[in-house]
This record gives sequence, C-alpha cells and structure tokens, in this order.
Amino acid sequence: MSGPDADTGAEVLSTTDGWGVFTHGSKALRGYLRRLRAGGLRALGRPAIVAEGPAWAVVDGDSALGMVTSVFAMTTAIGKARQAGVGYVGVRNSSHFGAAGYYASLAARDGLIGLAMANDIPSVAAPGSRAAVTGSNPLAYAVPAGKHPPLMLDMSIATVAGGKVYAARERGEPIPATWLIGEDGLPTDDPASYPEHSVLTPAAAHKGFGLALLIESLAGCLTGAATTWQIRSWLAGDPALPTGHGAAFLALDCAAMGDDLPGRVDQLIDEVHAAPTAPGTERLIVPGEIEWQRFAAAQVHRIPLPSDVLASLRESAEIAGLDLGGYLAPSLGRDGIGPGERHNLAYDI
Amino acid sequence: MSGPDADTGAEVLSTTDGWGVFTHGSKALRGYLRRLRAGGLRALGRPAIVAEGPAWAVVDGDSALGMVTSVFAMTTAIGKARQAGVGYVGVRNSSHFGAAGYYASLAARDGLIGLAMANDIPSVAAPGSRAAVTGSNPLAYAVPAGKHPPLMLDMSIATVAGGKVYAARERGEPIPATWLIGEDGLPTDDPASYPEHSVLTPAAAHKGFGLALLIESLAGCLTGAATTWQIRSWLAGDPALPTGHGAAFLALDCAAMGDDLPGRVDQLIDEVHAAPTAPGTERLIVPGEIEWQRFAAAQVHRIPLPSDVLASLRESAEIAGLDLGGYLAPSLGRDGIGPGERHNLAYDI
Repeated sequence: MSGPDADTGAEVLSTTDGWGVFTHGSKALRGYLRRLRAGGLRALGRPAIVAEGPAWAVVDGDSALGMVTSVFAMTTAIGKARQAGVGYVGVRNSSHFGAAGYYASLAARDGLIGLAMANDIPSVAAPGSRAAVTGSNPLAYAVPAGKHPPLMLDMSIATVAGGKVYAARERGEPIPATWLIGEDGLPTDDPASYPEHSVLTPAAAHKGFGLALLIESLAGCLTGAATTWQIRSWLAGDPALPTGHGAAFLALDCAAMGDDLPGRVDQLIDEVHAAPTAPGTERLIVPGEIEWQRFAAAQVHRIPLPSDVLASLRESAEIAGLDLGGYLAPSLGRDGIGPGERHNLAYDI
Repeated sequence: MSGPDADTGAEVLSTTDGWGVFTHGSKALRGYLRRLRAGGLRALGRPAIVAEGPAWAVVDGDSALGMVTSVFAMTTAIGKARQAGVGYVGVRNSSHFGAAGYYASLAARDGLIGLAMANDIPSVAAPGSRAAVTGSNPLAYAVPAGKHPPLMLDMSIATVAGGKVYAARERGEPIPATWLIGEDGLPTDDPASYPEHSVLTPAAAHKGFGLALLIESLAGCLTGAATTWQIRSWLAGDPALPTGHGAAFLALDCAAMGDDLPGRVDQLIDEVHAAPTAPGTERLIVPGEIEWQRFAAAQVHRIPLPSDVLASLRESAEIAGLDLGGYLAPSLGRDGIGPGERHNLAYDI
C-alpha cells in the first residue's frame, strides 16, 4: 500500500483500540493482510467519485482497504455538507470498514454531525426466521458538543455484534442465551456454534430488523453495492475475491444552520449526568463517554491490549514478515493498567 | 382552521387509522381540539421557513397543528432533495405530529427515501436511571419499492410507544413487565402507573437510549426547538400553552443517484419473503407490509375502529359541537370485519 493509505488504516485501527473497542481495531489487521496478499483487497486500489450532485456522491471503492475508502467517502460527505448543508455519500466495492464510529467521529471533529453505516453478509435473523436474513449492519453517529467530547454511538442492529461472539469463542466463554438463535430455531449460549450453526438475533426484534433494511437500502440498494447474500465474507471464503460491501455516510453542517448546537448538546449531556439513578448506578453515562475516557487515558498510558489482540498482531507480523521484537511488551490484560505503570504497558508499538 | 389545513389533519389521521395504527390516528383528535380551543395550538398558525440553504431548511411551526407543520416541512425537504439530492428540514415550535411514518411515506410516494423523527417530553428511562431521561422520540423511514409497497418502519425508541400503554390502560389490560420501570427502579405490569409513577424502558437498552439522543440532537438541539423537560405535554398540563416540540425530516432523491433502487428493494423484499421460517411462522413480513395490507382493505371495506377510538371521536364531536348522528355506526371491534359486511362497518364518517 502507499504510505498515506497505510497511515489511514493504522490511524483508524489504533483509534478504535484507543476507544477500547478491540473487536474492531488492530485485531482485524490479520484478516485484511490475508486479503491484501491474495488480491481480494487491492493494495493500490483508489476510491473515486463515480456520480455526484450538490449534496451527494456515489464512490466506487475499487476494492481498496475499507478504511481508505471510508475516510475518502466521509471526507467527501463533509465537503458536500460545507457547501450544501447536508452531504450523503454512498459507497460500492468497499470491504469491511472496522468501527463505523470512527467515520462519524471525523465529522464531529470538524464540528459537523456525522452518521456512518454499512451492509454485510447476512448473520442476523429476522423476527420469525430460523436463518440469517440481514447483516449485522452497523450504524454509528457522532454529534459535536462544546465542553464535553462528542456524543458517539456505534451500534450493530443485532443484539450484539458478531465480533463479540468471536471474542467470547476465542476466550472460551459462554454467552447470554439471548444473543444467538440455533438452526433449530432455539436460543443457544454456545459461541462456537456461530456462524456455522447459529445466527445473531436482531436488537429489539422488529426494530433492529427494520433498521437493518434501512441501512441495506442506503448502503446497498442505493449505491450499486452488493447486498445480503451477494456480499462475500471478509473473514472466510476465497481471499482472492473482493467482498463487494456497501456503505453510506451522512454529514450535517450544524454551524451553517445557526443555532448553538454544541452548547445545547452540552446541556443535554449535563441533564443526563444529573438524572436520578437506580440502585447500583452511581451516575448515568452518555454514548461514547467511556470510549473518550479510554482514548484520553491511552494518550498518557498507552493501550492495554487483550491477549487475543496481541496474538492476532503477532500473526499479522508473521504474514507481513516483520520481526516485532521489542515492539510488543507482555500484555497485562484488559484491566492491568494504571498510572505510573507506563513501562509495563502492552501497546508499545 | 382553514379548509386546507383541516384537510391535511384529516388526511394524516385517517391514513394512520387506515394502517391500523389506532394509537396515533383520529383518537388523538380529542386532545388536539382541546388545545386548539384553549390556544396552545394556533388554529390559524402558519409554518414558515426561517433559515435555509441548498439542501436544508429550518421551519418555525408557529404552534400550528403538528400535521400541518410536518407536511409543510417534509414537502420542503422533498423539494430540496429534488434540487440537491438530499434535503434536511428541522422544525421548532411544532406540536405532537401523530405517526412519524406518514411523513416518511410522503417521500416514498414521490419516489424518494424519507425519514421523520421528533422529540417529546421525557417518558423513557436511560440504562441505570429510575426516572425518565428522554422522550419516546419516534423514528420512521419509508423506502420506495417497485412492485411492492414501500418499506415503512415507524418505531419509538422505547420498548413500546406510550400510546400502547394508554390503550392498554383504557382497555383495562395488563402489560408485559418489560415495558415500564416503576419509580422504585423495578419493573411493573400495571399500565395505570404510567406516566405518574413509572417510565418506559428504552428499546435494546443503550441502543434505544443512544438513538433517542441522536433524534433529540437532530429534532431539538439543531432546530432551536424545546428539548426534553422544556417540552410541554400535548395531553396534560395547561392547554393554553404551546408544547414547543421539535422534529426533523430527511429526504434522499434516489432517482437522481442513478441506480435502480425500486427494483433492488423489490429483490430485497422477495428475499425476506423466501427466508426459512421458525416453527409457527408461515412467511416473514417486511416493515410496513401489514399496514399497507390494512390500508388496501380499508379502501374497500372501510376502517374497523376499536371502541376506544369511537369513544374518543364522540368526545371530539362534543367538543366541536357536532352531531355525529348516523356518521358512526356501532363498532364491530378490531377484528369484526370481513368481505361482504360493508354495511356493518364502524368507520362510516
């Protein structure tokens, strides 16, 4: 890959790790490298606008790394929004793009409201189905605040993201029986059954399913991308073939619309923080609050990578023929981090 | 009200009844009439654009009937989208707007993708709270198809909409214990506790709460509308005061973006219909399918209004000093309708 494109990928994945969203951070690099080597991801692919208007564009990702295409697309959406007030950019021929929240946060960093979403190969049941019908189709938003960090939600339309099931499987932990439906149509708490013999459940039943179809419409049907079963898995299957994912990005230029959005969002956050709590809860939190706290801590203490991420990074190094040597210190595990322990931290690359 | 504005209100409420969404249809007319008489809704209010750009506008609703302002706003969003590809219209000084899906469906009727949302006085808990933190903030979308009716989802970010709790209370039925949290922080199945002594739960916990804050940002913070506790209840409180609700409407002109969206959405719907079903389910349905079936049946058989809606309409007639006389035939109840029974139908106004 070109230096700038590699930098983009590294920035997205390490920011995601910095938020503590390890299922969607550098752990995924291993899978991307395999596809880059095999050709299913094009190392020198160049995303380009293939159609556009005052407030929209459609981008062809040329099967480049999903992060490269998605940063290009959100940057384009922000530019459109600065001109027209709103910008929608749809993407085809993309691939797995990691954490949708990263792209939404690009808009908020520049003072705009951002939304990001993508389709994926079906892994989630619909109400009444015993097989997958939609992808776990991520939906993220970020809204700029003033004194507070941006509101930021990055959700899957499934009860949980598939990455959390994979992580539980790799750690050998059972999962709640509400996450998966087996091929017999009954709930299962065995993460090893996924994805061969079970599918994810949709969040809030018909609501999650309905949001999945909206995301498929905006990211797939509207963009010319592959949809549902036409999409290829970015993890399994022939790594020499492109995955065909679609994505959609939306930016709204709140500064142009006049009212003091950041100040009003601050008030909203303060209100949530002051709300009466149920027994056992000290203070309410807003979406993204934990992630921004971890991100700030990572600037000082670096990132305490879990062992499954470290193992994946070591495999990535093998694939790339790199000697990690002293770059990765032994992991302290997810909670083994504290002030003054900088020399023992896991993330030292 | 002017004839055209009254027609707009009647069109929205009767369409909603035609979909079978009786909690948000003509049953609400009683409450609107009280506010119109007392001045909290301005019968001669005129919604107007107060700021705009190529792809956006902010509308001041002038405390007119929510349906009048919302149809004006979505029509404006559609016009912006036809010029720029996308149109966002934010609204302030609106009021209760009924079923969000109606405004989304206006876009789909014209071949565009439509989204509609609104804020409301807090009635929904956040994860860890024992009091209301956000409104039940409706979110609706409609996506045009080809041979099929539009995909259409109209959801509350609560596990269920407050209207369903009120309806259960009026019918004297208990509700599932997952719908409400009492002021002690524990679940309750007593609809009579709402809204004085309980609050709704957010759908899928932090996901529903996160969507509520996005909607509050787009419909409230960005528009200059009242937010959370600044909003006045459209049902309770002084009917002489405006409610101050905000709303947001988004339209995307898929025809301008080139790909065959309606055909691809048809394929998506066909795929869902062909999906393997769990025991007890004959065929999967897509969002809006039941509503459009009821709507088509209503064109032939008229609308079988439940008794609580009939009672509300009779109260509305009293408030307005109208003699309904033979307009409303005795109700057969929600399921008392079949072909050949046209002379016995409830909705005969």
